[in-house]
Amino acid sequence: MGATDDTRRSLGLVETQRVVLYTEDDPLVLDSGETLAPVEVAYETYGERAPGDGNVVVVCHALTGDANAAGHHGDPTRPGWWDTLIGPGKPVDTDRLFVLSSNLLGGCQGTTGPSSTDPATGEPYGLRFPLFTVSDLVRVQRRLLAHLGVERVLAAIGGSLGGMQVLQWALDHPDELNNGIVVCATARLSAQNIAFSAVARAAIMNDPDFQDGDYYGTGRGPDHGLSVARMMAHITYLSEESMRQKFGRRIQDRDEPRFDLGVDFQVESYLQHQGKAFLDRFDANSYLYLTRVMDYFDPFADPTRVRERLARCRTRFLVLSFDTDWRFDTSHSKQVVRTLTAHRVPVTFREIASPHGHDSFLLEVPEYHRTVAAYLDRALAEAR
Amino acid sequence: MGATDDTRRSLGLVETQRVVLYTEDDPLVLDSGETLAPVEVAYETYGERAPGDGNVVVVCHALTGDANAAGHHGDPTRPGWWDTLIGPGKPVDTDRLFVLSSNLLGGCQGTTGPSSTDPATGEPYGLRFPLFTVSDLVRVQRRLLAHLGVERVLAAIGGSLGGMQVLQWALDHPDELNNGIVVCATARLSAQNIAFSAVARAAIMNDPDFQDGDYYGTGRGPDHGLSVARMMAHITYLSEESMRQKFGRRIQDRDEPRFDLGVDFQVESYLQHQGKAFLDRFDANSYLYLTRVMDYFDPFADPTRVRERLARCRTRFLVLSFDTDWRFDTSHSKQVVRTLTAHRVPVTFREIASPHGHDSFLLEVPEYHRTVAAYLDRALAEAR
Repeated sequence: MGATDDTRRSLGLVETQRVVLYTEDDPLVLDSGETLAPVEVAYETYGERAPGDGNVVVVCHALTGDANAAGHHGDPTRPGWWDTLIGPGKPVDTDRLFVLSSNLLGGCQGTTGPSSTDPATGEPYGLRFPLFTVSDLVRVQRRLLAHLGVERVLAAIGGSLGGMQVLQWALDHPDELNNGIVVCATARLSAQNIAFSAVARAAIMNDPDFQDGDYYGTGRGPDHGLSVARMMAHITYLSEESMRQKFGRRIQDRDEPRFDLGVDFQVESYLQHQGKAFLDRFDANSYLYLTRVMDYFDPFADPTRVRERLARCRTRFLVLSFDTDWRFDTSHSKQVVRTLTAHRVPVTFREIASPHGHDSFLLEVPEYHRTVAAYLDRALAEAR
Repeated sequence: MGATDDTRRSLGLVETQRVVLYTEDDPLVLDSGETLAPVEVAYETYGERAPGDGNVVVVCHALTGDANAAGHHGDPTRPGWWDTLIGPGKPVDTDRLFVLSSNLLGGCQGTTGPSSTDPATGEPYGLRFPLFTVSDLVRVQRRLLAHLGVERVLAAIGGSLGGMQVLQWALDHPDELNNGIVVCATARLSAQNIAFSAVARAAIMNDPDFQDGDYYGTGRGPDHGLSVARMMAHITYLSEESMRQKFGRRIQDRDEPRFDLGVDFQVESYLQHQGKAFLDRFDANSYLYLTRVMDYFDPFADPTRVRERLARCRTRFLVLSFDTDWRFDTSHSKQVVRTLTAHRVPVTFREIASPHGHDSFLLEVPEYHRTVAAYLDRALAEAR
């Protein structure tokens, strides 16, 4: 039972599929009341469906993820973003589980978002894309399941914004998820969290090339702003200690400082690289929408509504935090646990020791992986 | 002895003076070997000089400070940046002390910096301004003292970059300062500190209106980048808890969220305001140079040199940190204290409890003010 290094393998080559889930005749009706169509969704599946759907695990991705959670698209050195966790013999064991991973609504990697064509104008939506909520993200996840004929979900799992979707799902549809695995997430961004998010958006929206979001096809876009936003976010993904170990005050490509205003320290070079590389794979408007969705997320805000919903909740939870995560530190997870427990929803909570900060959820942290593996083992055994 | 609220008064109207300290015949020779002239310095003095200069306190300002540390320039509602600390009956008591405060080399508020005219071209220096060090900042502080005929310094005091100058001064000129008061400073920026600094510079230098630093007189400049840099820096000046108390998740000017991408939460509004207001008083190139000076500051890097210098050091230190400061947390101050103590330099160290993060050094935190007042009382008594 559980994953060991000996049996871990990668899924190898996988493929993204696309499906139109909403059409003009049957549009997506958002929380706001606005409608959206068409909505296309990019998704991948790993493993085999068991008869009766007792082994379905839905992966919800974080801010900048995509459908390719595991395996690779042709280059084994560039595996999916959660390939550490998902695969044959891994904690989310595709030898036994059927795993479904899709790109989020509002994203830019195959699912309809601000860079998609607005059928009303024939032009990309830009900022005319409607604002949506975490509930809307869940709505689209569920529509994909309906499309595939999946009737039961053994577990939904996600880190950060992914975990927020898992939590919202269990609240909105209390009898749908058998298990929810919520990793380094939160039920409510703090003022500091919102502040970082606000500065990231200011960097993008104040960029003179942003053009009110209509930069598509103009030959220029808010690349500077988006790369600054990404650089800043990266600081919050790493712990201070991991930055110290990884870079310290070392100079890039030499021993002695250059003494100039350009890139000199290794940590500068790393951040510059992260900022630039991000431009190849992410759309600035998607970044605006998905960060804003997180700011507004506050599912426990109305105590009456929470009481009603959690009274009916059939989901068991595994809530995990990392001790050096300062983007969503353990107090965020504890708040989730306290609220669930107060309403008698079963929760297993672990604070995992890991030096890697928020990024830990993407990395091979043994205690973390053992905990997820053991939890899913038991969930699968109970479902049988 | 010491300050009490009953006796605290503001200095009232004060004036900035200017003096040319270096000329082409007698230029400033920087650490790098480069020369700079003319160098003009803006400064203010408060209180009366005692015979024999036994009561001189030099104030060293932080990244974005200026010469106007105390009193005001005509509007009592806009007092100097350290008016909480300096004035009649205050911890730096101008009834008894003679206080000198100047704008730093490389600054933009009266002292020669990148926005000053390069006599070689008749144009502003921009990025042709030479890179300088904290030692160079001290060099100019000392030249101002020489100009005023001050022969002894009872104490130099500074927070953050100001404290770094105090430390460097005591190392470079071990017999000059009787006392050094180093508040929430560091002897070495961490990788995370440098990272924030690097993102701030990227925001400025990647701004399409930066024009390689030659934006003066063009009608456009890196305003967007500079405001983003300032917004981000502000997050690091406040503690998470103080942001929670000050803003929480409250909405600006209404009860219900607007649900849009613009400014909605109070914390967003605050940061936007801070970013914009900064543009009126600060030059982007000065921001680049002064942050870079901090990155390279590493006065304890060479153990042999430190041993030699500290063996001769006559300065007594008061080192203060704040328990919620995460820009330069207490571990930075402790590192300073450990090194000084290891070389038998007398140090009094206090970690002050304050909810306000790095910004605490500018605020009226009672234990902090009592500690500075008591330290200066004793210093003054011993000097007599």
